[in-house]
Amino acid sequence: MAKILILGAGKVAQHLIDYLLSHSEEYDWWLTVADLNEDLAQERCGNNSRANGISLDAKDDEKRRELIKSHDIVVSLLPAFMHHIPAADCIEFKKHMVTASYVSDEVQSMASQVEEAGIQFVWEMGLDPGIDHMVLMEMIHRVQKEGGKINELRSFTGGLIAPESDTNPWKYKFTWAPRNVVLAGQGTAQYLKEGRLKYVPYNRLFQLYDEMTVPGYGDFEAYANRDSINYISKYGLTDVPTFIRGTLRKSGYCDAWAALVTLGLTDDSFPIIGSEKLTINQVIASFLPEVGPLDKIPLKKRVAEFLGIGVDDPVMFKLDWLGLFDALEINRTNGTPAQLLQDILEVKWKLQPEDKDMIVMVHKLKYSIGDELKAIDSTMVDLGEDAENTSMSRLVGVPLAIMVKLILTGEVNTPGLRIPIHEDIYIPALKELEKFGVEFNEVEKDL
Amino acid sequence: MAKILILGAGKVAQHLIDYLLSHSEEYDWWLTVADLNEDLAQERCGNNSRANGISLDAKDDEKRRELIKSHDIVVSLLPAFMHHIPAADCIEFKKHMVTASYVSDEVQSMASQVEEAGIQFVWEMGLDPGIDHMVLMEMIHRVQKEGGKINELRSFTGGLIAPESDTNPWKYKFTWAPRNVVLAGQGTAQYLKEGRLKYVPYNRLFQLYDEMTVPGYGDFEAYANRDSINYISKYGLTDVPTFIRGTLRKSGYCDAWAALVTLGLTDDSFPIIGSEKLTINQVIASFLPEVGPLDKIPLKKRVAEFLGIGVDDPVMFKLDWLGLFDALEINRTNGTPAQLLQDILEVKWKLQPEDKDMIVMVHKLKYSIGDELKAIDSTMVDLGEDAENTSMSRLVGVPLAIMVKLILTGEVNTPGLRIPIHEDIYIPALKELEKFGVEFNEVEKDL
Repeated sequence: MAKILILGAGKVAQHLIDYLLSHSEEYDWWLTVADLNEDLAQERCGNNSRANGISLDAKDDEKRRELIKSHDIVVSLLPAFMHHIPAADCIEFKKHMVTASYVSDEVQSMASQVEEAGIQFVWEMGLDPGIDHMVLMEMIHRVQKEGGKINELRSFTGGLIAPESDTNPWKYKFTWAPRNVVLAGQGTAQYLKEGRLKYVPYNRLFQLYDEMTVPGYGDFEAYANRDSINYISKYGLTDVPTFIRGTLRKSGYCDAWAALVTLGLTDDSFPIIGSEKLTINQVIASFLPEVGPLDKIPLKKRVAEFLGIGVDDPVMFKLDWLGLFDALEINRTNGTPAQLLQDILEVKWKLQPEDKDMIVMVHKLKYSIGDELKAIDSTMVDLGEDAENTSMSRLVGVPLAIMVKLILTGEVNTPGLRIPIHEDIYIPALKELEKFGVEFNEVEKDL
Repeated sequence: MAKILILGAGKVAQHLIDYLLSHSEEYDWWLTVADLNEDLAQERCGNNSRANGISLDAKDDEKRRELIKSHDIVVSLLPAFMHHIPAADCIEFKKHMVTASYVSDEVQSMASQVEEAGIQFVWEMGLDPGIDHMVLMEMIHRVQKEGGKINELRSFTGGLIAPESDTNPWKYKFTWAPRNVVLAGQGTAQYLKEGRLKYVPYNRLFQLYDEMTVPGYGDFEAYANRDSINYISKYGLTDVPTFIRGTLRKSGYCDAWAALVTLGLTDDSFPIIGSEKLTINQVIASFLPEVGPLDKIPLKKRVAEFLGIGVDDPVMFKLDWLGLFDALEINRTNGTPAQLLQDILEVKWKLQPEDKDMIVMVHKLKYSIGDELKAIDSTMVDLGEDAENTSMSRLVGVPLAIMVKLILTGEVNTPGLRIPIHEDIYIPALKELEKFGVEFNEVEKDL
């Protein structure tokens, strides 16, 4: 018998729970789903006698520690910045732990303790990071076993909207935490291109995108993730000249988002005092270098001039569609620009109940073998069912569930803090993921 | 008898000490100068029998608290983020305290305790903030007493270099903490213009400057300080349509600094891993959108194209003069872009021993009185003697010293946390500052 503790009962939890319960008789597993919202936790468990939904405030040390002590493995769906709390408990009580989040510095500093405790911590075991790591490492190892040398690795993932639900000019709706979308890319993107380190400051990030087409799904744009450099050594590619990880959006998104960045509307660093007394067009006007009465020159014309584009530019159409040039009331006291923008987007980009989301993942590898230069494009497109059963939540939840199974069955048995770049994880995990339709279409060509 | 404790023995301390010692017999004052560097603390005291230099690590709670307990007033020249430490002691032991720094949120939260303790905390009592507050409030109150109404207040200060020491193309040398100069303006500048809030994100700040001439001293540029809005109510000007505080540089500086910002060289948020193995031209190339071998198109030409200016533009001349396009070695491990830039500037912008600095302060007021519109321009230029006796350190040190005198003699006697916007402070302080040549040239005109 093994007891599994799931911290958090959001959308992702459902797919995780469904998978684990489908194997619970076979392996004699018992699940506890703990969330601030007890009703939600119970709802996720359905009527299954092997699962129990309970109320938990993850900051309640006593209750959380008691729970972790009485389970064998913990899956944390808590916000990323909180993982170190159950992680410390897991080390103390020698319990395994799995998450879909990036390894933070705080968690990295626990690595030797994890190893000493003889337990398994698997982080970055979701979609991106997660499935991307596994698919890339499988490709890299395959090329290397053939005697090939990787010259270029570019990997892009987008949490987007299915063509049939693609009903707004931005071709985007929220399928993931809105705040993360609004603040995406802040900092400086770092990657390697043709043997040189490249730095792209935030204010230029959305102006500098790669374009690509996925047959049957249209045209996409990719902007660089903040830190690709970290993964070069993790992937064992210390001599690769070009290495970039990025995020996909549908065509036209990046130019329009760049306009919001240039205006200053994604700034989350200061409150607009008295924002509740302003209208959104007044806020936009505050970010323009020139002032004067709004009724003389229309705001839209002034913004277009400021951005150096025509009023009929598709970018302006997208901004206009958001209502940024209208006297919309602001229902937030002393909000940051980013918060005011998020409030607008949450209405405009709301996923409707029947909307289907879409995950697109594209890996582009170039390698040399002898005198030959070759390329592999590997592409996956996965659609959700509706606003509740999203592709995003399934492709995060199922890898986590598979990892739990691999640990509890003893199939993966290497103590320490790891991410799924190792053969012992990705071979069985990718095989299992195929059952969930996670299949990549590979196109190879000679260059 | 009164005992004065000075925390910190930098350049500013000398002017503070000299003033206080010049009055120490008259008022029976005793000075303790405490610094990590005991030799420096003693050197600042000279052979004066009423002053004593000692060693102190301000983080040594026991020693610091013992010292504060045995003195009557504390002047903190510690880094701004540390003032709250002696401030808490001063509240506990009921001692007065004076600093030249901005009131931090942490110190602001102590305000009611200060008042309850019946002690005087005077913050922002240096040059800028300090002298600017006093001169502006004197002007504002004078206009208001005549029945005038302020329509516009613009106030600018620059820590610059005297014409005779102005020997480089940037017309700038470090007369103050280099790190603060390199990071200046990060965040979003906020001010009020023609009745509207204006926000200027950092990436546009140095592109958007006011120009002004100071007869005899040449042309200047002013960029907005981060937060002018805070001071509108402090100055009692709740209905003023235009209110801006800013920083002066000599003509040509802002465009060139804007180029460094656009490139990304003032970014302090991430380390360039392995910077010690790179040269500065390689780092610059990393920030350009396009890559390729450096020997094909000269870096300077590429930077000019990226910035959208000619290679012969004065901006390019300034960047070139810094050596940014050369294969300069980098002597810093994993430095941030801002640190690498600072290393270069500290060599290029070094104040030579015989260099004279220059403080320029300009206040521009517009007001209406009856049907008349009037303007006052108030200007001060002050020169230093050499790299040690800077105008900067004198104009920060002397106001602090005057404040100590006003408190110890009982001339200013209002308990609480204050800044020098009140008549009881600025009238005697400005009068005393006149003896040190701090005089403003006022030009009034009808509009």
